[in-house]
Amino acid sequence: MNAPIIVLQFEEKMYSFKNDYAEGAHINILHKLIETNTIQQAGYGEDAYSLQAKQILRDKIQQPEAAIFFLSGGTQTNLSVISSLLRVHEAVISARTGHIFANETGAIEAVGHRVITVDTPTGKLTPDLIEATLQDYGLRPHVVKPRLVYISNSTEIGTIYTKLELTALHACCQAHGLLLYLDGARLGHALMASDNDLTLADIAQYTDLFYIGGTKNGALLGEAVIFSNHDLGAEFDYVLKQKGALLAKGRVLGIQFLELFREDLYFKLAHHANTMAQQIADAFRTKGYTFLTDSSTNQLFPILPMDAIAQLQQKYDFYIWKSIDAEHAALRLITSWATPAHIVEEFVNDINSL
Amino acid sequence: MNAPIIVLQFEEKMYSFKNDYAEGAHINILHKLIETNTIQQAGYGEDAYSLQAKQILRDKIQQPEAAIFFLSGGTQTNLSVISSLLRVHEAVISARTGHIFANETGAIEAVGHRVITVDTPTGKLTPDLIEATLQDYGLRPHVVKPRLVYISNSTEIGTIYTKLELTALHACCQAHGLLLYLDGARLGHALMASDNDLTLADIAQYTDLFYIGGTKNGALLGEAVIFSNHDLGAEFDYVLKQKGALLAKGRVLGIQFLELFREDLYFKLAHHANTMAQQIADAFRTKGYTFLTDSSTNQLFPILPMDAIAQLQQKYDFYIWKSIDAEHAALRLITSWATPAHIVEEFVNDINSL
Amino acid sequence: MNAPIIVLQFEEKMYSFKNDYAEGAHINILHKLIETNTIQQAGYGEDAYSLQAKQILRDKIQQPEAAIFFLSGGTQTNLSVISSLLRVHEAVISARTGHIFANETGAIEAVGHRVITVDTPTGKLTPDLIEATLQDYGLRPHVVKPRLVYISNSTEIGTIYTKLELTALHACCQAHGLLLYLDGARLGHALMASDNDLTLADIAQYTDLFYIGGTKNGALLGEAVIFSNHDLGAEFDYVLKQKGALLAKGRVLGIQFLELFREDLYFKLAHHANTMAQQIADAFRTKGYTFLTDSSTNQLFPILPMDAIAQLQQKYDFYIWKSIDAEHAALRLITSWATPAHIVEEFVNDINSL
Amino acid sequence: MNAPIIVLQFEEKMYSFKNDYAEGAHINILHKLIETNTIQQAGYGEDAYSLQAKQILRDKIQQPEAAIFFLSGGTQTNLSVISSLLRVHEAVISARTGHIFANETGAIEAVGHRVITVDTPTGKLTPDLIEATLQDYGLRPHVVKPRLVYISNSTEIGTIYTKLELTALHACCQAHGLLLYLDGARLGHALMASDNDLTLADIAQYTDLFYIGGTKNGALLGEAVIFSNHDLGAEFDYVLKQKGALLAKGRVLGIQFLELFREDLYFKLAHHANTMAQQIADAFRTKGYTFLTDSSTNQLFPILPMDAIAQLQQKYDFYIWKSIDAEHAALRLITSWATPAHIVEEFVNDINSL
Repeated sequence: MNAPIIVLQFEEKMYSFKNDYAEGAHINILHKLIETNTIQQAGYGEDAYSLQAKQILRDKIQQPEAAIFFLSGGTQTNLSVISSLLRVHEAVISARTGHIFANETGAIEAVGHRVITVDTPTGKLTPDLIEATLQDYGLRPHVVKPRLVYISNSTEIGTIYTKLELTALHACCQAHGLLLYLDGARLGHALMASDNDLTLADIAQYTDLFYIGGTKNGALLGEAVIFSNHDLGAEFDYVLKQKGALLAKGRVLGIQFLELFREDLYFKLAHHANTMAQQIADAFRTKGYTFLTDSSTNQLFPILPMDAIAQLQQKYDFYIWKSIDAEHAALRLITSWATPAHIVEEFVNDINSL
Repeated sequence: MNAPIIVLQFEEKMYSFKNDYAEGAHINILHKLIETNTIQQAGYGEDAYSLQAKQILRDKIQQPEAAIFFLSGGTQTNLSVISSLLRVHEAVISARTGHIFANETGAIEAVGHRVITVDTPTGKLTPDLIEATLQDYGLRPHVVKPRLVYISNSTEIGTIYTKLELTALHACCQAHGLLLYLDGARLGHALMASDNDLTLADIAQYTDLFYIGGTKNGALLGEAVIFSNHDLGAEFDYVLKQKGALLAKGRVLGIQFLELFREDLYFKLAHHANTMAQQIADAFRTKGYTFLTDSSTNQLFPILPMDAIAQLQQKYDFYIWKSIDAEHAALRLITSWATPAHIVEEFVNDINSL
Repeated sequence: MNAPIIVLQFEEKMYSFKNDYAEGAHINILHKLIETNTIQQAGYGEDAYSLQAKQILRDKIQQPEAAIFFLSGGTQTNLSVISSLLRVHEAVISARTGHIFANETGAIEAVGHRVITVDTPTGKLTPDLIEATLQDYGLRPHVVKPRLVYISNSTEIGTIYTKLELTALHACCQAHGLLLYLDGARLGHALMASDNDLTLADIAQYTDLFYIGGTKNGALLGEAVIFSNHDLGAEFDYVLKQKGALLAKGRVLGIQFLELFREDLYFKLAHHANTMAQQIADAFRTKGYTFLTDSSTNQLFPILPMDAIAQLQQKYDFYIWKSIDAEHAALRLITSWATPAHIVEEFVNDINSL
Repeated sequence: MNAPIIVLQFEEKMYSFKNDYAEGAHINILHKLIETNTIQQAGYGEDAYSLQAKQILRDKIQQPEAAIFFLSGGTQTNLSVISSLLRVHEAVISARTGHIFANETGAIEAVGHRVITVDTPTGKLTPDLIEATLQDYGLRPHVVKPRLVYISNSTEIGTIYTKLELTALHACCQAHGLLLYLDGARLGHALMASDNDLTLADIAQYTDLFYIGGTKNGALLGEAVIFSNHDLGAEFDYVLKQKGALLAKGRVLGIQFLELFREDLYFKLAHHANTMAQQIADAFRTKGYTFLTDSSTNQLFPILPMDAIAQLQQKYDFYIWKSIDAEHAALRLITSWATPAHIVEEFVNDINSL
């Protein structure tokens, strides 16, 4: 009974701009898997590739003492990190658009903590928003105690933090005894954005912990959690195992990050995704279309007339993100490390001829 | 500072019998990853490979309606399944040697449930042991309510269930309103054992749910959870996502099981591991050595004199499992899908010349 | 060092309208405690008084099969009930003003479930609001599954449900497979309101479960949870014990409800509280003051000029609930079963002479 | 249908030695409830009686900075304390007879933590047992991390800790970074035992935290948790509220402890219970009967022939604790603050004439 579905999918012709995890992995990673396949290695992250990858990351962030762990996915990373750091009465502050609130099936509540949401059109948090939230949660002990601030860079709507914004937020957290955690599912795209002024070392310096996302930037799977403050991560190995995040064949994750970072492949792939997206964005702008939110990364939210949308749907697959009015809707278009230049060229032509 | 460690590991010469996840994956899986790498697929397990693999598994277990899901590892699978099925006051019954009690960092307690342990030298549960446990937990409401019986096949000490034992346990569970869940981290090795009389379809028929382990039998990673009773798994998709077990690139898991089962590779690999182990077991028996527990699968627990152990340690890596007396200890030796025949031949010679 | 505080409190002269739990209990309850004090009784809710009180409640709600349990407080009741009924991926829908969201220190999240909030100026939920929420939570499996609707009657802002509103909400829940749970911390005040058209039996009929609050209406402590659908509560005894809600001396709770319900004392006390409140409300209305929300129960939210507030603060204690503008604020005034008529008379005079 | 049950219970003639919570409370407590009933007080434990009772307790334990909180019952206290102190990967060590393992419906597992059990015939833990447990849990990160040691004094089988035993255990915990928590549900009976050499101040000094049980020694309800180390309890107020342990009318709990401790009533009541028990114990010894465990407190476990048991059952109610052989069983007899001397005299006569 699944047969038709399968056939349908294999015959699928339209190119998809739905997400950045529709393909496998960068070929270097697959080749490295084959090259190292028969070498026996220790399990549970003690393999040579993981150790080497962690050392490379410590060097890149200039934190020789950082505690680093590899996990399979973002939701798993967020719930493991947060449940390892918070006490039962403590809570997380997140933008309402934050992945932990909007897309993780209550993973944080399932480990016992409220996600306090903040409405912010940019998808970004600011010191003012944090302080207003602390005000709202002042009625001790009848309310939870905010303890950790969760941000994403790039955000779930494609925006990025400037160095000024991140350092201000970090100072605010320090002042109020809050931990600052950055979800880097698309960190590469943020750091490669044309208007970005943050480095990977800055991210490590101005957060208490963060993760580098592999899944959405060329890895088969894998996220790297980095505790710049080594003590915060001193017992995270227990939590990794308890939450089912510790792969027996840790080598699989180690190899992803070894290949992505030994020669900056990670940044090259993100740069490609951004470039593809911005070519598309320029085409829309040239045609006079506006956007739901400005984005210099690999996620675009152009607002189009319904008939133009219908025309593009003939050849391309993408999400209709939000209805604007009877005549218009905003799309979500995502490019990736694997998006072919010739497809983008063709798409741009199709936009021009709308 | 990790450099020496890495070098040490790369120069590592001794062959390891420590576990069955020291190598990568069967080469067919890696080739399939490359072959399908650039084909765009839906995420979160809706890819064509996962759908096809699930269909193949439904056919093999002769349960056309079975609900099937792929996860990354055993601990993740156990905690997701158990937290999805139990109410807050319900508990699991397991052998004290059961993986969920002995090796998963309290993963089950962390999702709120007690693991009630039963002492059993064979590592197997029986109707008598279950009924004695129900007796012990009779003081309602001051004690938890046993609701699910957890067994492993093969067990953590290499033993296997016979069809008579499994059907009796299943009947006992049915009679007492208990769910029967089988951990198949090494199910292949159990079903390929020379003295096994169970089929994969029997496993599906005489349990409420079970999982087929990929990680310890030739996959890069991956376990397949099978709810023969479709209703039990009807909302498991939510739990998968909540526990961080739903990979964005589900194709990675789908391809493991597609390759392992489209032509019984899974069973061939397990058969090889067992054969290698039994050649070693025969050598020990011939020399007159005894075993901590009899095993017809890929885990062996021979009891050797300390000097013999020291001699083998010159060339091979393995765990010393348990001290027997001042002069003797039991080893744990594990073979795998990847154990070379020539290494086993050499090892057998070394045993003979002890 | 606490000494001064103590003295200060003992010398406290101002009458407090801050809440409805500032005094002890109705004297009949204390007398009954003394009268029965030396009679030996079974523990854990099996005492004669609890059994008798439950029988009386079953008769009053006309549900001979209802499962009834006594707990110490509202937060404990809410977390025990909700954790007993929901699966790990299920969530609660509540008004943002709902006690479980606003005043219980994340008790529901701490047992693993998200509280989905709905903004509603009346503090009441409607079928439209429920259906809009189900729309928002449609992206299965990336979001939690709404399973239980939590309402309060009277609400946290003093409003009440009409029979038409409750039956419509109940029908909506039935249609969408949602459980309807009513928090009755102030149920007496709701049922005794001049504009109420619901009976206790209606509450039992048009909800799946609810609780009758004793603490805020004349009991020393105690809430009675009622599962009209007996099956829903069939194993709640385990949860009671697990959450620390099962008192060894269950007689203490049984006696509260025996005295409150054997002769409708519960309703008389709530009627008194409402009457006192409405005398105060009339005085404010007569003076031309408006209210933040209309309330026919024992909670009032009058909007006064700051100087009038300062004048009343000379003699009375109450909360300033919300700032309206530079010149005005809304107070929260609460009367209770114990509020003396002569104090209210004096307060009314003070209002008139503002 | 409950009617017969009720009547039966009211007509119940046999005196019960089943537990120490069969009656209400010491009359002084009930009189104080009436005396203070109409005085308005702040809620949630900020009332004058609670503040005064806490000050009295701080003086008695000679810890002016101790953080003290009142809760309703033992299970609630244990789960609140443990969930406030442990991180997700940490576990509790307890005797297998410990109340948290044997009688609390998995309350500790329900808040996410394993209870590691230790077999000990005396019901008491020792440094050797703790160190053996740490050995068993050495396989980091595949096992939970022991973090808190739970003991009861008197134990669930009536035994008590000597000063030498407690100080040795405390030193062992300090040496291994373990917290020592003492469950004092029957602390009064332990401290009043003829062979006790510990003071209340010793208990505070040689544990990290403990609780004083009111329910089993003359209170209507209530346990007092004492964090000698103030920092450990610095945020416990949040947890109290979250777990539903914070009574709105905290005065009810405050008054229990105010009356029990302002003039050592607590110790007098426990002394009475012990005296009654020892008179019964002497009678059994004189008749040549032995005991399952020696007890100098208010719990006795005499071993009697079945016919003698049958004879006593004519007039008295008690638990048959354990079958010894075809001819003999051990009883559990518990006396309390409320056990009348004349009943004990009569019981002793009945023993003598067995």
